[in-house]
Amino acid sequence: MDFSLDEDQQLMVQTVAELMAQENWEAYFQQCEEAHQYPERFVAQLAALGVDSILLPEDRGGMGSGWVTLAAVWAELGRLGAPTYVLYQLPAWDTILREGTAEQIDKIMAYQGTGKQVWNSAMTEPGAGSGLGALQTTYTRRDGKVYLTGHKTFITSSAHVPYLVVMSRDSANPDTFTEWLVDMSLPGITKEPLEKLGLRMDSCCEIYFDEVELAETDLFGTEGRGFARGVDDFDFERFLVACSDYGMAYCAFEDAARYANQREQGGEKIARYQLTQEKFCNMQIRLTNMRNMLFEIAWKFDNGLMGRGDCSMAKYYCARASFEVVDDALQVFAGIGITGNHRVARFWRDLRVDRVSGGTDEMMILTSGRAVLKAYR
Amino acid sequence: MDFSLDEDQQLMVQTVAELMAQENWEAYFQQCEEAHQYPERFVAQLAALGVDSILLPEDRGGMGSGWVTLAAVWAELGRLGAPTYVLYQLPAWDTILREGTAEQIDKIMAYQGTGKQVWNSAMTEPGAGSGLGALQTTYTRRDGKVYLTGHKTFITSSAHVPYLVVMSRDSANPDTFTEWLVDMSLPGITKEPLEKLGLRMDSCCEIYFDEVELAETDLFGTEGRGFARGVDDFDFERFLVACSDYGMAYCAFEDAARYANQREQGGEKIARYQLTQEKFCNMQIRLTNMRNMLFEIAWKFDNGLMGRGDCSMAKYYCARASFEVVDDALQVFAGIGITGNHRVARFWRDLRVDRVSGGTDEMMILTSGRAVLKAYR
Amino acid sequence: MDFSLDEDQQLMVQTVAELMAQENWEAYFQQCEEAHQYPERFVAQLAALGVDSILLPEDRGGMGSGWVTLAAVWAELGRLGAPTYVLYQLPAWDTILREGTAEQIDKIMAYQGTGKQVWNSAMTEPGAGSGLGALQTTYTRRDGKVYLTGHKTFITSSAHVPYLVVMSRDSANPDTFTEWLVDMSLPGITKEPLEKLGLRMDSCCEIYFDEVELAETDLFGTEGRGFARGVDDFDFERFLVACSDYGMAYCAFEDAARYANQREQGGEKIARYQLTQEKFCNMQIRLTNMRNMLFEIAWKFDNGLMGRGDCSMAKYYCARASFEVVDDALQVFAGIGITGNHRVARFWRDLRVDRVSGGTDEMMILTSGRAVLKAYR
Amino acid sequence: MDFSLDEDQQLMVQTVAELMAQENWEAYFQQCEEAHQYPERFVAQLAALGVDSILLPEDRGGMGSGWVTLAAVWAELGRLGAPTYVLYQLPAWDTILREGTAEQIDKIMAYQGTGKQVWNSAMTEPGAGSGLGALQTTYTRRDGKVYLTGHKTFITSSAHVPYLVVMSRDSANPDTFTEWLVDMSLPGITKEPLEKLGLRMDSCCEIYFDEVELAETDLFGTEGRGFARGVDDFDFERFLVACSDYGMAYCAFEDAARYANQREQGGEKIARYQLTQEKFCNMQIRLTNMRNMLFEIAWKFDNGLMGRGDCSMAKYYCARASFEVVDDALQVFAGIGITGNHRVARFWRDLRVDRVSGGTDEMMILTSGRAVLKAYR
Repeated sequence: MDFSLDEDQQLMVQTVAELMAQENWEAYFQQCEEAHQYPERFVAQLAALGVDSILLPEDRGGMGSGWVTLAAVWAELGRLGAPTYVLYQLPAWDTILREGTAEQIDKIMAYQGTGKQVWNSAMTEPGAGSGLGALQTTYTRRDGKVYLTGHKTFITSSAHVPYLVVMSRDSANPDTFTEWLVDMSLPGITKEPLEKLGLRMDSCCEIYFDEVELAETDLFGTEGRGFARGVDDFDFERFLVACSDYGMAYCAFEDAARYANQREQGGEKIARYQLTQEKFCNMQIRLTNMRNMLFEIAWKFDNGLMGRGDCSMAKYYCARASFEVVDDALQVFAGIGITGNHRVARFWRDLRVDRVSGGTDEMMILTSGRAVLKAYR
Repeated sequence: MDFSLDEDQQLMVQTVAELMAQENWEAYFQQCEEAHQYPERFVAQLAALGVDSILLPEDRGGMGSGWVTLAAVWAELGRLGAPTYVLYQLPAWDTILREGTAEQIDKIMAYQGTGKQVWNSAMTEPGAGSGLGALQTTYTRRDGKVYLTGHKTFITSSAHVPYLVVMSRDSANPDTFTEWLVDMSLPGITKEPLEKLGLRMDSCCEIYFDEVELAETDLFGTEGRGFARGVDDFDFERFLVACSDYGMAYCAFEDAARYANQREQGGEKIARYQLTQEKFCNMQIRLTNMRNMLFEIAWKFDNGLMGRGDCSMAKYYCARASFEVVDDALQVFAGIGITGNHRVARFWRDLRVDRVSGGTDEMMILTSGRAVLKAYR
Repeated sequence: MDFSLDEDQQLMVQTVAELMAQENWEAYFQQCEEAHQYPERFVAQLAALGVDSILLPEDRGGMGSGWVTLAAVWAELGRLGAPTYVLYQLPAWDTILREGTAEQIDKIMAYQGTGKQVWNSAMTEPGAGSGLGALQTTYTRRDGKVYLTGHKTFITSSAHVPYLVVMSRDSANPDTFTEWLVDMSLPGITKEPLEKLGLRMDSCCEIYFDEVELAETDLFGTEGRGFARGVDDFDFERFLVACSDYGMAYCAFEDAARYANQREQGGEKIARYQLTQEKFCNMQIRLTNMRNMLFEIAWKFDNGLMGRGDCSMAKYYCARASFEVVDDALQVFAGIGITGNHRVARFWRDLRVDRVSGGTDEMMILTSGRAVLKAYR
Repeated sequence: MDFSLDEDQQLMVQTVAELMAQENWEAYFQQCEEAHQYPERFVAQLAALGVDSILLPEDRGGMGSGWVTLAAVWAELGRLGAPTYVLYQLPAWDTILREGTAEQIDKIMAYQGTGKQVWNSAMTEPGAGSGLGALQTTYTRRDGKVYLTGHKTFITSSAHVPYLVVMSRDSANPDTFTEWLVDMSLPGITKEPLEKLGLRMDSCCEIYFDEVELAETDLFGTEGRGFARGVDDFDFERFLVACSDYGMAYCAFEDAARYANQREQGGEKIARYQLTQEKFCNMQIRLTNMRNMLFEIAWKFDNGLMGRGDCSMAKYYCARASFEVVDDALQVFAGIGITGNHRVARFWRDLRVDRVSGGTDEMMILTSGRAVLKAYR
């Protein structure tokens, strides 16, 4: 057993830590948050350090590293206050490389190193939750063209990405689910931004497709395999959500620990009160559990051992446990926490969104619970 | 035993229910929330219905009713979506009538029926939490005048009230704690509004007093008894916070129950899933507990039986239990809950503030726990 | 509103309190517990005081009182350490009076005032849980007689009751579910006592019926309505379980409060530590909630207002909340709690059984959750 | 990072798994439990396999292995149903080797390979909890001899150990705390067994020392350093408790998972119900967290990296988390769990003891919380 990072991993962690120390990023993040803006200047610097190529294979010019490295970098960024939740697409080349045509790959890879949000996938619809049965977006072939019509909602990052992979069903054959890589500058596309409780540096829109004209070459992956494709990639998304959540909790915890050692109440540092010590004991337990759970899953993935329900379990546990840590931290800050836009209050709002976004807690519970039980049939 | 309201109480409840039905108040509340504005038009109508005189003695022209009536009205208002947290001062004439001079009483009572926020008390300071030892605001007598200097923070409702009761210590005798009824239009007073996580229809400021000149007639209550006065009135404030919290939870619960019976997922109403039913069972338990706890305490107060830790217990329990109800409701709404400024998300933020404001959870725990143990010494 | 008991109710409470003070019943209960024996001497005294006729109509010579009185008496008995869980049948004449023939009523009522366990109903079978579909006990009519064959399990109180109401299906018509009032001294009946984790003063057996010969006059209630009959009476059983649980929690809490004020650790009474105060705050909250929930439901029942899921909610909440109170109390006692057969440790084991017995937590959650949701359809 | 066991560790795990498969040990354990008897025949076989020499240095003939190996073996034994809580002393030679005289070491090491319980330390007294201030056991030097007098309580394993390390204070100098290695066959020693809620295969006694005559050579460790010695070894005990707890939870979980896939209710396997799946998701989370926490701490210890509060955190978390797992498992078994001495019900009782024994939850919370906060001063 070995719970330590290797030298390369440590170096990568140190590199991002140095970036975080270079300026008062918190002021910038707060601006972006207020403006509901993607922190592109920050992400560009991450990309310049190669953070977007951690998982990219070496033959594509990437580091060819694994989930452990990624988790370590995400944890460090989060600990130092960076909103890693805006980075879901940054390391996620795998889907494109696996499913895309050469031409599609070129389009997407062109953004490497820029730090821009490039694409996301769009599945959810107003009447359909995350289920497929009620999906109403359709594609229709006509005169060698493909026409896409439908209404997607809660589409993360969708305000500015140049491409969206859109799930739809064949109007001629409703059991065929297919995805299309849609150029978002095409006519017939309307976006309505949604106000969000948290995660405000990332966008979220309703998107309307009204007879958007596509070419056959825009087909993404394999016709009829759209749903399977999505499911394959859910695990990675859930893992990243969990890593982001852990990072926020760690940051809030350290902020609160420093504060508790300094703030006096009734003539004593509040760190000396039993109720404060109890909070920190519980925070430490949750942080320990999240960290180990994430690194174990990462190590399992990197070694081909990941289980069916692992990432769902991690997203469920980390979203809740990190919320509890941040909630405790907020309570330590008391008045200072609930006024004046403290970052701990921001995390607190952010984390609530993660219990819905990327699959609800309830879906995680059922996916993970069923996987557990199946192993004992 | 009798768990029902009497006819007068039912009538009062019905009256406010009718007001709530008269227009789409939610649209107005959302505006006020966004503008960080006190919903004066709404409160004026409540006052016109006599809600501000529920507790006012009959010889002052009030209803002379008790906490049970108040709790029933607050619960109904909350259930129908009204932000009762802006109403803390509305029924609270008792302090002024008990402690004020005739002249002070006249000044304050002049606002009856207007629905305006009239006064609040200012105790907390940056370095002092809710403790007295570190209090640094002082008053100094000089040439027949009194000069007040200090820095208060987290002062609820303070942006627009004409009067503030300010806790201070005698600069000549630091063990003497005295309150002053300060006219907020006096020179030497500066207010800095604080951004808040929730409860945004009420204001919250830092207030600086720089040699504010007062007269001896501005002394509030009894010199040297400032702290005891505050403590006497804490219980009422905590009770009102708990009533507000209960109301928000009730409203969120009903919204969610209606939605769960209607929203489909995987071809079924979500109300048919066990995990949904579990949530509603738990919500119902918490609502039942809060309602009974509040009405029992109200009944005890009205009958001279209230215990030392009762209101602290209620504030602690209701702030947390209502949060859990609202959190469950938010989860039922899922995507709709975390986007688009749904009122359930607003309650969710509001309730977090109440675990700090009016005394932290930790203070409630200790006050209530000690009272419990004392009874068995 | 009125949260107080009336004079008759107070008198009844006082009467049982006096009985409890007459001797060191705890020594007796401990003996019964160790011998796995029904505390008949104690219950006979309760019966002598009329506790078994609280709910009995006045025209049957009873008090004709209601659930509020019953709850008050159960609470007081429990608070003073009595195992009220052995008393489920004591006040439950209603079923017999409603469903029984004149002859059956006479047989059962003959036990009034004795304090003996008279009857219970037997539904559960090894393969069937609480569901009916898989029920395998059958009755067969042959030559003017009825033959009962089957295997019941987890039958509370069954070791010594003279009668058992047994649920069975017609072998000729398996959709017909019928109950029989079985004289337990008949040939063909075998009982195997089951060791239990708690509630050891009451018995629990597996019961085998092997062609037990009954008469048509042994039919209980209405042929084919067996299941409906059972469901009608579940609510009362659940209410009584909840009352018992509350009583145990109250007793453990008072024991612990007295101990915490007396026991020193590190040179201080443990009552002075924040972690202890937190426990007592939480205990108090749960006791308050249980008490109010039970009395409200009792009052609703007595006034014809009881809701469909009320008793299920109460059993679920009280079984868990009382366990948490007792668990906290046990932790206050620490070493003394986990050794030497302290009654608090006994309650702790007892309460665990109540999360299964009389319907599992899960059944309570679903019954109550569905009732809640139905009201908002 | 590496979350896998190395070959030697896997081999050791496999070896004990084979022992567990050799007979129906559960029947034997149940006998021992009922007879309140140490399972010596079982432990002797463990010792024969070398389990007692995992941590023993190679120059003493041991394996010289570390905590990771130990944790892996304990986890596997626990998973397969073995009561590892009787094994606290089995691997604990370190204390003796570090503190003992050559003669003392010989006496203790003579038991290696036998599987007998050899010694334990005795600190707790009726009036003193785990604090030292109130300690009343004294030693008095007289005529070249040492006389030990006092009353110890809750002394685990003390019924049959040949030696007990007894904490006492110098009657001539009460600030000097010293331990003595006491031969339990000496005159003046009385033992009174205590009934326990759980962990019944291990003994627990009150011990009275009445002028027990010792020699100077019986002094254990360094005079006046008794307390420091104890503290040094607490961490190991807490770690072992946590390992035992994890094993019980794992065993209960696997029992329940197999049962849930098989048991029908309402015509469906209970594994198909959402409430069951939720339980297994939560069990899996807790098992994952415990396993990772324990192995991480073990790895840290083996690499000289263990933190001050780590073992306290682990004992606190594992005692509670394993209880919750076992409680869920018990609920899955429902009627079968609460009757008939199912091993899951035994674990459930056992685990409750571990929240007190070896240091209460509260001590763990404070020790661990303070360590956490200290790191941020």
